[in-house]
Amino acid sequence: MKAEQNLTMLCDFYELTMGNGYFQAGYQDRITYFDMFFRDVPDRGGFAVCAGLDQLIDYLQNLHFDREDIAYLRSRNLFSEEFLEYLQNFRFTGDLWAVPEGTPIFPREPVITVRAPAIEAQLIETFLLLTINHQSLIATKANRIVRAAQGRTVLEFGSRRAQGIDGAISGARAAFIGGCGGTACTISDQLYGVPAGGTMAHSWVQMFGSQYEAFKTYCEIYPNNATLLVDTYNVLKSGVPDAIRAFNEVLKPRGITKCGIRLDSGDMAYLTREARKMLDGAGWTGCQISASNSLDEYIIQDLLRQGAQIDLFGVGERMITASSQPVFGGVYKLAAVEKDGEILPKIKVSENLDKITTPHFKRTYRIFDRATGKAEADYITLHNETVDETKPLELFDPQATWKRKTYTDFIAKPLQVPVFRGGELVYDRPLLPEIQRYCKEQVETLWDEVKRFENPHGYYVDLSQQLWDIKQALLRQN
Amino acid sequence: MKAEQNLTMLCDFYELTMGNGYFQAGYQDRITYFDMFFRDVPDRGGFAVCAGLDQLIDYLQNLHFDREDIAYLRSRNLFSEEFLEYLQNFRFTGDLWAVPEGTPIFPREPVITVRAPAIEAQLIETFLLLTINHQSLIATKANRIVRAAQGRTVLEFGSRRAQGIDGAISGARAAFIGGCGGTACTISDQLYGVPAGGTMAHSWVQMFGSQYEAFKTYCEIYPNNATLLVDTYNVLKSGVPDAIRAFNEVLKPRGITKCGIRLDSGDMAYLTREARKMLDGAGWTGCQISASNSLDEYIIQDLLRQGAQIDLFGVGERMITASSQPVFGGVYKLAAVEKDGEILPKIKVSENLDKITTPHFKRTYRIFDRATGKAEADYITLHNETVDETKPLELFDPQATWKRKTYTDFIAKPLQVPVFRGGELVYDRPLLPEIQRYCKEQVETLWDEVKRFENPHGYYVDLSQQLWDIKQALLRQN
Repeated sequence: MKAEQNLTMLCDFYELTMGNGYFQAGYQDRITYFDMFFRDVPDRGGFAVCAGLDQLIDYLQNLHFDREDIAYLRSRNLFSEEFLEYLQNFRFTGDLWAVPEGTPIFPREPVITVRAPAIEAQLIETFLLLTINHQSLIATKANRIVRAAQGRTVLEFGSRRAQGIDGAISGARAAFIGGCGGTACTISDQLYGVPAGGTMAHSWVQMFGSQYEAFKTYCEIYPNNATLLVDTYNVLKSGVPDAIRAFNEVLKPRGITKCGIRLDSGDMAYLTREARKMLDGAGWTGCQISASNSLDEYIIQDLLRQGAQIDLFGVGERMITASSQPVFGGVYKLAAVEKDGEILPKIKVSENLDKITTPHFKRTYRIFDRATGKAEADYITLHNETVDETKPLELFDPQATWKRKTYTDFIAKPLQVPVFRGGELVYDRPLLPEIQRYCKEQVETLWDEVKRFENPHGYYVDLSQQLWDIKQALLRQN
Repeated sequence: MKAEQNLTMLCDFYELTMGNGYFQAGYQDRITYFDMFFRDVPDRGGFAVCAGLDQLIDYLQNLHFDREDIAYLRSRNLFSEEFLEYLQNFRFTGDLWAVPEGTPIFPREPVITVRAPAIEAQLIETFLLLTINHQSLIATKANRIVRAAQGRTVLEFGSRRAQGIDGAISGARAAFIGGCGGTACTISDQLYGVPAGGTMAHSWVQMFGSQYEAFKTYCEIYPNNATLLVDTYNVLKSGVPDAIRAFNEVLKPRGITKCGIRLDSGDMAYLTREARKMLDGAGWTGCQISASNSLDEYIIQDLLRQGAQIDLFGVGERMITASSQPVFGGVYKLAAVEKDGEILPKIKVSENLDKITTPHFKRTYRIFDRATGKAEADYITLHNETVDETKPLELFDPQATWKRKTYTDFIAKPLQVPVFRGGELVYDRPLLPEIQRYCKEQVETLWDEVKRFENPHGYYVDLSQQLWDIKQALLRQN
């Protein structure tokens, strides 16, 4: 996990059968354009937060077939020797554009665009989707939960319920991008710098002769980090009183006023209000109250409405698995091919209208109102269209084309940035805290109507007239 | 991923603060007993399938702190130098018992039991839960889906929607244990021997001048493995006719009768019935029909009820994330400590009755009816109780103690097997196909009433009289 991994073989087998097929058919060098995009925001939210690009970069930089990989493929008796030989020097040589991590993203706009020889563009599909889908899912969920906490700290506590090793490790990273203050997952701190912390489990309390002894011992060992778990037996009858006694005996003589208690069960609204009174009454106004136990954005909102006295929320399984909707449905679709230097748009039609793709090599602009700084719409154009900010820009709904809106005083900012050019990394990878900060800033550019949990306003994602015309023409041809 | 990973630092940070605390308090060598168990079967099912032990074994065998791990911990300024020094030679030296992978398991019975010095037993909590929770979740879901398919093949297709790298790789392994015939995930074949396969995506069809050309080319390259994706444009108008034409032109002259078509969208019940007629009418009775597109156990049941003509089901996101309930809620609780050679039972009480643990070092027997071979009940006893199969055995419901049942002609089989003894592996790890076969056999020992999806019969998990008495006594003390 700490060493660089070669995940080239983490691909759907059909990427390989197609790769060999393109090779055999002489199509391996045909330049193709693929878009990764998604169709629905999880939890019927108004936007998603994209994440996972950093792991995609690692993967692409490491992309190669080891000798044992080729031996495995040979053993399958499906692939030509020429193809297997070709794979020995296989590298990613293409171009890649991506929306930076932490950016709010909307359905049906390109998040990642790949321009590469068919065989390369195809092979990377599975891993690209896997990492962007996973981390965008968790970043989006974490952002909802963090917003529900209204400025209180949210910590990621879910490793034990994560879907596998990387579910925990990259999940903690994505949760941090979405706004979490830290994680319980130690290795995510070591690998990615997600601040890790934690104090005690129920077993610590049970290990000692009494709860008081367990608390006192902990305070003596960690006087500056004493958060005591008070619900092993009874929160109000013994948990909080034993904690106060330990604080008084160990911390007070040392002049320490910062400490904490944590509740992991019971009626959080009632128990935290009562605990707050007991702590304040004993002079421990600096004692923070943490709560965990099956929390999510709705329960946090509800607790705060009930006047729960909670300073930190520890959120586990419902964040690390995005349990209310545990799939981010990103897809990767062919948008164009090059033939004799010309870009030919490609479309995937479907009886399900929602599954029809937007063809061609494209560029997306986010339109910000210059006065308010608010994001108003995203505008998808052909790759070589520019937007003249000095002239009014009329956008129209690509389905209900009579719905039109004109923007005048605006900034048009390209959403994607170049990441690879000719297989070389050309992107300056931001540090994780910068990504978190960027995410917070960008979410603030959205109107509250887009951010609310229930029936959010549908943010506009429109096509340029040129792009719309090409799409219609291709649909008529089919 | 292919090399042995050191995942020692994949632990909740509190395992380390507690570890240091035990060390400082002189408790690090105190022998403790922890049980891993779960409380609720996902999807309100009647049983779960356990999986993940093999990865737990790898983890325990690799458990150690590297120099860089210790440097990281030192940088946190929380841990004593003596503790950090102690970690340099830290290994797992304990005993571990586990229910073999593929076994049906029920709520509130020990799946894994650990006997080890406090500091070791504590440290392994996070990873143990993570791997058993994740793989049991997916194996359980896969088993439901496979049972719904009534003997038809189910393939795991979900890598791109998995929650991270390991979600895909170990997820495919767990799905195979649950009964899947194979996976699309190539690396899971290479690492674990889960048969991987796949043919083409829509992009293959779009890449060629025509659908027919795409199909023909594929058949020429893979005459023995030609499964054609027929829904890129229109299944019945062009997809199936183009496929038949390609089969006729390429496969027929070679005498090949085995081939396939795949549908990934549209009305599966109608389209597959019509496609079947067209294929049979053209003499391609050996052509198998595969279907994918948001399948799960309920949709598969429904399709079969409607007479859909499907030979293989490719199941993606709903299996690889167990999306209907994406968390397996296994917990790890202190059950006993040793003091002066004596085992002292420990209990965790809670205001939530369901969260009260069963104390002590225990042993679980599965009671099989000797005549039918059916599993009748699980019977949890103290670790040193034996069951005399020659005498009638009366079990009682631990909540409603007046509900009693007596078994006479039975076999009592211990559920757990020894895996580690004194830190040494003493378990002969079965191969993956053996685990799959074992799972199938063991699920067949369950009554249909336990296996049904809706309102399954609650399988009995009872306590011995001695164990029940100890639990009651501890509850009265609290």
